[in-house]
Amino acid sequence: MSGGERLVGDLPQRDASEIAGEIAADETLLVSGFGSVGYPKEVPLALADSNRDLSLTVISGGSVGNEIDSELVKADAIDRRYPYQARPPAREAVNTREMAFKDRNISTLGDEIQYSEITDGGTAVVEALAVGTDWLIPTTSIGQTPAFVESADRIIVELNRSVPTAVRRFHDIYRLGKPPNRNPIPLADPGERIGDEQIEFDASKLAGVVETDRRDQPYEFRDPTDDDRTIASNLGTFLENEVRRSPLFEESLRIQFGVGSLGNALMSALGDADLGGRDLIYFGEVIQDGLLDLLDEEKLSAASATSLALSSEGQEQLFNNVDRYAENVVLRPGDLSNSPTLINRFGVVAVNSALEMDLFGHVNSTHLNGTRMMNGIGGSADFNRHSPVAVLALPSTAADGEISRIVPMVPHVDHTEHDIEVVVTEQGVADLRGKSPEETATALIKNCAHPDYRENLQEYLNRGLDSAGHVPHDIETALDWHVNRT
Amino acid sequence: MSGGERLVGDLPQRDASEIAGEIAADETLLVSGFGSVGYPKEVPLALADSNRDLSLTVISGGSVGNEIDSELVKADAIDRRYPYQARPPAREAVNTREMAFKDRNISTLGDEIQYSEITDGGTAVVEALAVGTDWLIPTTSIGQTPAFVESADRIIVELNRSVPTAVRRFHDIYRLGKPPNRNPIPLADPGERIGDEQIEFDASKLAGVVETDRRDQPYEFRDPTDDDRTIASNLGTFLENEVRRSPLFEESLRIQFGVGSLGNALMSALGDADLGGRDLIYFGEVIQDGLLDLLDEEKLSAASATSLALSSEGQEQLFNNVDRYAENVVLRPGDLSNSPTLINRFGVVAVNSALEMDLFGHVNSTHLNGTRMMNGIGGSADFNRHSPVAVLALPSTAADGEISRIVPMVPHVDHTEHDIEVVVTEQGVADLRGKSPEETATALIKNCAHPDYRENLQEYLNRGLDSAGHVPHDIETALDWHVNRT
Repeated sequence: MSGGERLVGDLPQRDASEIAGEIAADETLLVSGFGSVGYPKEVPLALADSNRDLSLTVISGGSVGNEIDSELVKADAIDRRYPYQARPPAREAVNTREMAFKDRNISTLGDEIQYSEITDGGTAVVEALAVGTDWLIPTTSIGQTPAFVESADRIIVELNRSVPTAVRRFHDIYRLGKPPNRNPIPLADPGERIGDEQIEFDASKLAGVVETDRRDQPYEFRDPTDDDRTIASNLGTFLENEVRRSPLFEESLRIQFGVGSLGNALMSALGDADLGGRDLIYFGEVIQDGLLDLLDEEKLSAASATSLALSSEGQEQLFNNVDRYAENVVLRPGDLSNSPTLINRFGVVAVNSALEMDLFGHVNSTHLNGTRMMNGIGGSADFNRHSPVAVLALPSTAADGEISRIVPMVPHVDHTEHDIEVVVTEQGVADLRGKSPEETATALIKNCAHPDYRENLQEYLNRGLDSAGHVPHDIETALDWHVNRT
Repeated sequence: MSGGERLVGDLPQRDASEIAGEIAADETLLVSGFGSVGYPKEVPLALADSNRDLSLTVISGGSVGNEIDSELVKADAIDRRYPYQARPPAREAVNTREMAFKDRNISTLGDEIQYSEITDGGTAVVEALAVGTDWLIPTTSIGQTPAFVESADRIIVELNRSVPTAVRRFHDIYRLGKPPNRNPIPLADPGERIGDEQIEFDASKLAGVVETDRRDQPYEFRDPTDDDRTIASNLGTFLENEVRRSPLFEESLRIQFGVGSLGNALMSALGDADLGGRDLIYFGEVIQDGLLDLLDEEKLSAASATSLALSSEGQEQLFNNVDRYAENVVLRPGDLSNSPTLINRFGVVAVNSALEMDLFGHVNSTHLNGTRMMNGIGGSADFNRHSPVAVLALPSTAADGEISRIVPMVPHVDHTEHDIEVVVTEQGVADLRGKSPEETATALIKNCAHPDYRENLQEYLNRGLDSAGHVPHDIETALDWHVNRT
């Protein structure tokens, strides 16, 4: 592709509502998008406006915008949805169970689509900044687009002219082969490039190209709260000690932060930590605004992710300075950004949040009161399980202090006692490494729980210590904490 | 090392009780052993008999024999124990919490020992079939011995003359490097060899060599029950279909089975499945008796593991025919046998059992009634999480039908809803891929639960469907099933 050319070759240019009309009512749509950016917009809107009786399955890379998870959901067009959603109408449809939903890990979704029974063919609807007869270049996220394009029977490309063509310079699209002959990933360094800017496909699958200049509807980050700042400060102190103690961090600190306002605030604050001159490298799933500032200040040497999950201001900052950032920012497919083996080989410190944690180290990231889905597990399990130092960072309370996020037993488990090494709240830090369940509970009550809840938590623990085994739960009252709350 | 020589060079040969007397009362012992074989025997027995007031930390590769987890425990010598135990005295000490215990995954224990805060130095006590001034050759298991020998300050070798020196021919000891410069594992095939027979160490760390001819106390497998046979038959039917459906199994089926009598029975029965001429390859953590028979019948082309967890009869069968088996049997360190990336790259079907599973796909492998530890998670999470097709195989009931193993909510979660793809009981098969929580519950009740419990489980599900969100739990009564049982 030459510099600014977006449509290369003889392409089937189509009107959105026309091509939407050719999509079967019960089709499986494999849509691009991750971190609320880089998703298709015109075809979903045309489907939502079509007044047809639709029962679609919609599978995305990760979070997508209102055109899909609000408009198409409100049109009652989606029967089934994987693997993540973060818009109120989608959340409501998941929780009324009108939309069947299965929460999936990011790292393996591509394989599941390509090799499992959960879909057969389907139509890929993917956003691109340029397209040819047998290739496309993704926009602001890669996500699972390569796997979707490979496994779909048909491909519809939304060419988005609002995304600068230079964004392609961030891309590094490497494909895992098919097991059992899947080769080791030859990436030696988080900032290295081993793939292409573009995704290739079988030309006969290209059903149409729809043009748009409609922009992403990205996240809006709230300003950091006092608790966010104290958590960031506690995390900074822990990291300053950890990099000096552990042989894993002699030269550099590789780190990931979860998506969201707290994650963004933690990223920003990391620039203040004294890492003793060590290189700071980001290896995560999203680039958020906080990282751009660290790059500007030359405090971060490289950033690898699968999505530019920036605010509108962050997008402006990036789009106006692609040349400056392209050297240090790499976008990869989700099965590399979240790859268990890369997280392990690079020794990435993981920093993720959650709804709540229990006294014995189990974590609920997704389901309020064990039943009501918030967004989904996203990449948190990929990083928590495979990081040598998985840090759970969360405020000790929610709802203005009315709810403790440290509880006797979580009513839904996304991460087990085997996954988290360190817990940070605004109260302090609990290092769970090597600790038995009883020791874990004691450390969490003392160092991380809010003082208002320590006595009740200790009473619960004492009941377990009186009667139970290795994990001193009092099963009879383990969930009362949640039942009495509702 | 020349053929039969076991002691090479000028070695510090020592009496067991003498060298045991030099071990500090609060020492950390890093002991070899996995699958109840290949563990040190004389030094632990000497410590148990010493009448000293000991408060040891004992970290093993996996399961070890009575010399450690019975005798040393009964002598009240162990204050702290990781990562797995399977002998009644150890289990009792874990559940009275007299012995602090932390359950760990197999794949990452070596890294935790080498890079985390859970131990600093310590004494490695490891069994070998031959030893030199700066090398040793393990016996019937590799486990975490390479990591232990690397990270320990001192090394005591137990030279076991009862293990044929030819057993070294099974070994393939490859070491992962230190993150962030850890290279990809260059293993292209489960049966390939990329390492050495021996483990090297700094000669100055060798504190003593103790000789013994005391044998392992390996597992005793019970005879398969009727339920075991029906589960094996249901699994066989599932696999026959799956290998024909999935592009992952065009050429071969790579498979792992969990440790134990059911696992052993399933291994044996696999020979009867019609795989359409596909190669059958084992990639797991233990070689059990059932696999030897498949090798004898030439139904299995290779077997990779970290332990020869055979019965006494199985050990005889193997030891008398090392030449025959050495071509196809490979023993690796636990961080390779259970490597997430190798399980993923080879596309290994995982078949593991558990105590119970809940209606929404969460699995309890370890804690009776959520509090009482059985053995430990072992390698089940390594395989379940990273297998493209993780199968949970278990009888639908326990205690002669008095207890359903399908329950509303498990009181302890080792594997989450994200980890298991397929459930097999003697009642049938539930394929959970792509299923929402409601669909998962419906399939488990219909296909896997015992008929005696279906009505009660359906009533529970109906209560959740009346009132709850995405996961239709009735939190108020979720654990009554367990409370009422005790």
